[in-house]
Amino acid sequence: MITRTEATFAPPIPEAKRWLDGVEFAPDRPLINLSQAAPVDPPPPALRAAMAEALEDPETHLYGPVLGLAALRAALAADWARHYGGTVTPAHVGITAGCNQAFAATLAALTTEGDEVILPLPWYFNHKMWLDMSGLRAVPLPTGPDLIPDPHAARALITPRTRAIALVTPNNPAGVEYPAETLRGFFDLARETGIQLVVDETYRDFDSRPAAPHDLLGTPGWEGTLIQLYSFSKAYRLTGHRVGAIIANPDLLLEIEKFQDTVAICAPTLGQRAALWGLEHLTQWKAEQRAEILDRRAAMQEFFPPLAARGWRLRGLGAYFAYLEHPFAEGASTLAPALVREAGVLVLPATMFVPPGDPTGERHFRVAFANADRDSLRVFCERLAAFDRPLASPGSPA
Amino acid sequence: MITRTEATFAPPIPEAKRWLDGVEFAPDRPLINLSQAAPVDPPPPALRAAMAEALEDPETHLYGPVLGLAALRAALAADWARHYGGTVTPAHVGITAGCNQAFAATLAALTTEGDEVILPLPWYFNHKMWLDMSGLRAVPLPTGPDLIPDPHAARALITPRTRAIALVTPNNPAGVEYPAETLRGFFDLARETGIQLVVDETYRDFDSRPAAPHDLLGTPGWEGTLIQLYSFSKAYRLTGHRVGAIIANPDLLLEIEKFQDTVAICAPTLGQRAALWGLEHLTQWKAEQRAEILDRRAAMQEFFPPLAARGWRLRGLGAYFAYLEHPFAEGASTLAPALVREAGVLVLPATMFVPPGDPTGERHFRVAFANADRDSLRVFCERLAAFDRPLASPGSPA
Repeated sequence: MITRTEATFAPPIPEAKRWLDGVEFAPDRPLINLSQAAPVDPPPPALRAAMAEALEDPETHLYGPVLGLAALRAALAADWARHYGGTVTPAHVGITAGCNQAFAATLAALTTEGDEVILPLPWYFNHKMWLDMSGLRAVPLPTGPDLIPDPHAARALITPRTRAIALVTPNNPAGVEYPAETLRGFFDLARETGIQLVVDETYRDFDSRPAAPHDLLGTPGWEGTLIQLYSFSKAYRLTGHRVGAIIANPDLLLEIEKFQDTVAICAPTLGQRAALWGLEHLTQWKAEQRAEILDRRAAMQEFFPPLAARGWRLRGLGAYFAYLEHPFAEGASTLAPALVREAGVLVLPATMFVPPGDPTGERHFRVAFANADRDSLRVFCERLAAFDRPLASPGSPA
Repeated sequence: MITRTEATFAPPIPEAKRWLDGVEFAPDRPLINLSQAAPVDPPPPALRAAMAEALEDPETHLYGPVLGLAALRAALAADWARHYGGTVTPAHVGITAGCNQAFAATLAALTTEGDEVILPLPWYFNHKMWLDMSGLRAVPLPTGPDLIPDPHAARALITPRTRAIALVTPNNPAGVEYPAETLRGFFDLARETGIQLVVDETYRDFDSRPAAPHDLLGTPGWEGTLIQLYSFSKAYRLTGHRVGAIIANPDLLLEIEKFQDTVAICAPTLGQRAALWGLEHLTQWKAEQRAEILDRRAAMQEFFPPLAARGWRLRGLGAYFAYLEHPFAEGASTLAPALVREAGVLVLPATMFVPPGDPTGERHFRVAFANADRDSLRVFCERLAAFDRPLASPGSPA
């Protein structure tokens, strides 16, 4: 008998952290850890002060409504409607304890044992884990060198058991920003075939495109097909406070409410208040954060030529992530711990983002560059360029 | 096609709150709301101050380890070992975002589609909802007038698909404190039949017995059979901060880590720090809270005779709850909204705690008395005693 959790793999991030065990780093050559996509700085002082003040309100310590504080639902609806155009009302918004929970709750409302969900490759490992634990079949949708999934290729994968396609844009792990026409193509495909399109926009605040990345919410009846997921963790540095959101059909949110009531009761109230304060006060600050991340993205590109000269390829770049193809004969899963010991850098092998045996996994690394400043990124690229191993023969799978 | 969430019912508490819609209460006769088992007062000032201080530590705003902060795991292990005797190490403790999540994560690690879990009646509705959403069969174990489940009766319900028995003590909804020998009987049964015994002690801090309520953790190898669940919400008034715990086999916790990583990433860091501060500093305060709740329990008993004279029966009493049998011909599910309108009291009908069609549901109410002071409880009992309806004929099912 295999239990639900036994049906999936161990969380990759703790596993990667174990590669650090027993490795010593010289004080003048500290580890550069680009493994996790989470801010490491605290929220800005004004937000911290607002949170401290909220602690003096008794309501902050109580359960809130299962689907979130009314004021936060209203503020996010207004923010979303402003940025994307179209109709998003407070009833379209549900608040969760983080965006992973948003995905889990959404899938619980859409699927049951034996159903299928299409995920483009590379996929976000927590999505795959939740499908495994839910008795769902994750149907991989391979992508080409540009890492952009193709709706026409997806069509061929749809079966009577397919319930949804789940996209992440800007993408984790590949960093790529899906073009508006790609999203439109998936939306049309989903609507035509009667399945749901789940679009996880955890990294939307760091998209390089200043305008809305798609116009799907302007489509009349979008809520019959589209579900959007969001996280407050990155924008306002609230990772430890666990707040995310679902933008969806109000009827679907009533189904999601059952899952939330049973698994969370509600998202933490203080985190919700902090997210609301952020929406109301941190627009300018968030814009500065975005500019900083975009500058780091530019730095990755600037420092890349010496790596390119050694055979590395920058396959994807955007939001928090770069997706690097390495030139070596060895696979990424054995190179990654070696990079810790020999180069003092921690990045995740793409084997964590593809099905077992998929050859692209051993050829790539995910680099979560958002926490590193320009200097660190320069040193990071130098260390990778100095890392020496036998090269793959030409024509190896890429 | 029925999705996971469609396989279960709507959360009862929001449904009960809707009975208040449009009902006006005179200022001199406010609603007495005894529907929810959650503190309504904030944490004590010293704990609030500690939380405000924690906000100035950048770590408070970051993800913590999936299974919880090491210091909190260690402190809870020490607390649990002290109170129960036996061996509980930090590796036996996992921290969750509340005790509902502890239950969900535990079941995900123990079961899969089509498995069976035995729940005594009346059951806690969120347990039943999670079993429904997980594709599990909840096997009801009826109890007699004392509401204490019988291990011998449970034995007859065990099949090859049975994976666990889940108990709640002190019980939600019935308030009864399960005797040590009952727990021992279930432990022996579980060990003998190779299933797991899940004991949810959310309300352990308000048990009227000053010593440990059982000695199961003193049994060598307890972790092969026993899993305990706990909540910090009630003891330290941290409901809105979402912190609970699992005490279990370290190997099982590694399975549970997969669920937690995917559904929560981690429990909120501030809530965990608050729980740790509480464990370290609020022993005396918690004892006073317990004395206060025990006094309210005594008040329920004191004020009950006029109700008894009108045919009501106090079937269970303890921790946060009284379980009342009413004398009327009508069922509890129709009487409950009438009690709001006519008596100004909100309590939950036991139909929310039993399978559809189980006649005991229509005969009982759950009264969550812990938030009401003596005066309110006196008024509550007076209002119930004044509530008039045709009586059931003798011999109706009880």
